[in-house]
Amino acid sequence: MNRIYFFKCSAAGNDFVLFDDDITPDLSLDGKFIRKICDRRLGVGADGIIRIKNSGKADFEMFYYNSDGTGGMLCANGARAALKYVRFAGKVKNNDIVFESSGRRYKGNIVSETEIKFYFSDIGEINVIEDLEIAGRKIAGYEIDTGARHLVININDLKNSAPDELSDFPVVELGRIIRYSERFEPEGINVNFVEFTGPELKIRTYEKGVEDETLSCGTGSAAAAIVAHKIFNYKPPVVLYPKSGDKFIVDFNVNGNKIADVSLTGPAQIIYKGELLNL
Amino acid sequence: MNRIYFFKCSAAGNDFVLFDDDITPDLSLDGKFIRKICDRRLGVGADGIIRIKNSGKADFEMFYYNSDGTGGMLCANGARAALKYVRFAGKVKNNDIVFESSGRRYKGNIVSETEIKFYFSDIGEINVIEDLEIAGRKIAGYEIDTGARHLVININDLKNSAPDELSDFPVVELGRIIRYSERFEPEGINVNFVEFTGPELKIRTYEKGVEDETLSCGTGSAAAAIVAHKIFNYKPPVVLYPKSGDKFIVDFNVNGNKIADVSLTGPAQIIYKGELLNL
Repeated sequence: MNRIYFFKCSAAGNDFVLFDDDITPDLSLDGKFIRKICDRRLGVGADGIIRIKNSGKADFEMFYYNSDGTGGMLCANGARAALKYVRFAGKVKNNDIVFESSGRRYKGNIVSETEIKFYFSDIGEINVIEDLEIAGRKIAGYEIDTGARHLVININDLKNSAPDELSDFPVVELGRIIRYSERFEPEGINVNFVEFTGPELKIRTYEKGVEDETLSCGTGSAAAAIVAHKIFNYKPPVVLYPKSGDKFIVDFNVNGNKIADVSLTGPAQIIYKGELLNL
Repeated sequence: MNRIYFFKCSAAGNDFVLFDDDITPDLSLDGKFIRKICDRRLGVGADGIIRIKNSGKADFEMFYYNSDGTGGMLCANGARAALKYVRFAGKVKNNDIVFESSGRRYKGNIVSETEIKFYFSDIGEINVIEDLEIAGRKIAGYEIDTGARHLVININDLKNSAPDELSDFPVVELGRIIRYSERFEPEGINVNFVEFTGPELKIRTYEKGVEDETLSCGTGSAAAAIVAHKIFNYKPPVVLYPKSGDKFIVDFNVNGNKIADVSLTGPAQIIYKGELLNL
């Protein structure tokens, strides 16, 4: 077997194993291998896998897979980790970086040594669900596709039926019920619980594919920031604090009823590099 | 900063980050660094840290730290991982290996490429606790020191108060209550829930220091095997299946009322090697 090298990356606590096709080419990334790599005790442990390839049309091409082996959706934190990596590895010199993923073209920016910005493309419209059933209540839910399909819930709508503080909220329990509920079948949905009380948002996310809460979710944070603007009148840039405690800034331009150039800025690091020996 | 290299090891699902003093000397292993390394999303992720040093009196010296930074106790799976590592790294050629840890001398044996045997020293006597309060019941508990302090509970004693099947058992919930109960203050105790029904035991362990269930625990499995022999008349070798599904063999010699040469055999692997870049 050829040697398999990888890089472990963290983007605001969302963690990834990254394979660079220049270093470990021809790697066969099947579901079984992905699940093994992502196992936190028997493998390397990660929320997802990133593969970086050279591209003739952009600075690089990125492939993303969830820890359960599914792929094809956007992972904004994964994109920020990939942007950090290509700069770290010396593959790009400019601060403005262009890459491809799933046939789409994305932009990123190296804000500083530790802060990486990712620009979304094709953010969908908000679909307001008026009769979402949670914890024995009917509340509103805000569905939006930011590259992945997200539901945003204002936890204040659940006052007296669930804990007031987001830190005490049963994110996994309620998130899993909603994610697997009939309404969102067959694809399921990512579920974000948000405190829209202060000038800055607090957010916790249940991610499908990971099937657990993650320490932060980039597409979910963008979804919450857009809901904050469109429904709760927040002005960009919107600051959010995910479970990891890191600071996310979601910025966008507003032109009448339209928003454009949605970006997510937050920390990203390459924690360590590794070589698989026995997996 | 000097480069910091490590090896990620798994011994029956119990996972460790190993530092070899020959490769990364003078590493300062303080509590903060240990907790960071052991963090499963922001660090490398492990149940504990192992450090290997050369010894003038044995094949090597081993230092062990729990993921919370505490140290000084025996970790039998950690010892098996260390034995696997020194052979993997070519530090020893013999199958019989002698090492020091916390001022004691231990023996190990390379049974095969994947199976590693560790010999305990100074196993304590069983202290039968007749009135252990769990789940609203008073049952017996078997306390024994196998290098770490363990409580062994026969889950059949909790019939009708807790699930019959070990796989459904609330190990973390009940384990944590017992570990922090007044009776075992101030040091606390590791708690093993065991099915003593068939010829082979099933075991799940709540580990203090990790403060969670682990996929397997070597000192706990030895504790359960000795209780199986002394209380439930099992004959050595005793076979146990921890949560990881791996097979443990605990063997010992019986001489009247005494047991000696207690050993634990099970799988151990070096999963990958790594170099810290940003932690």
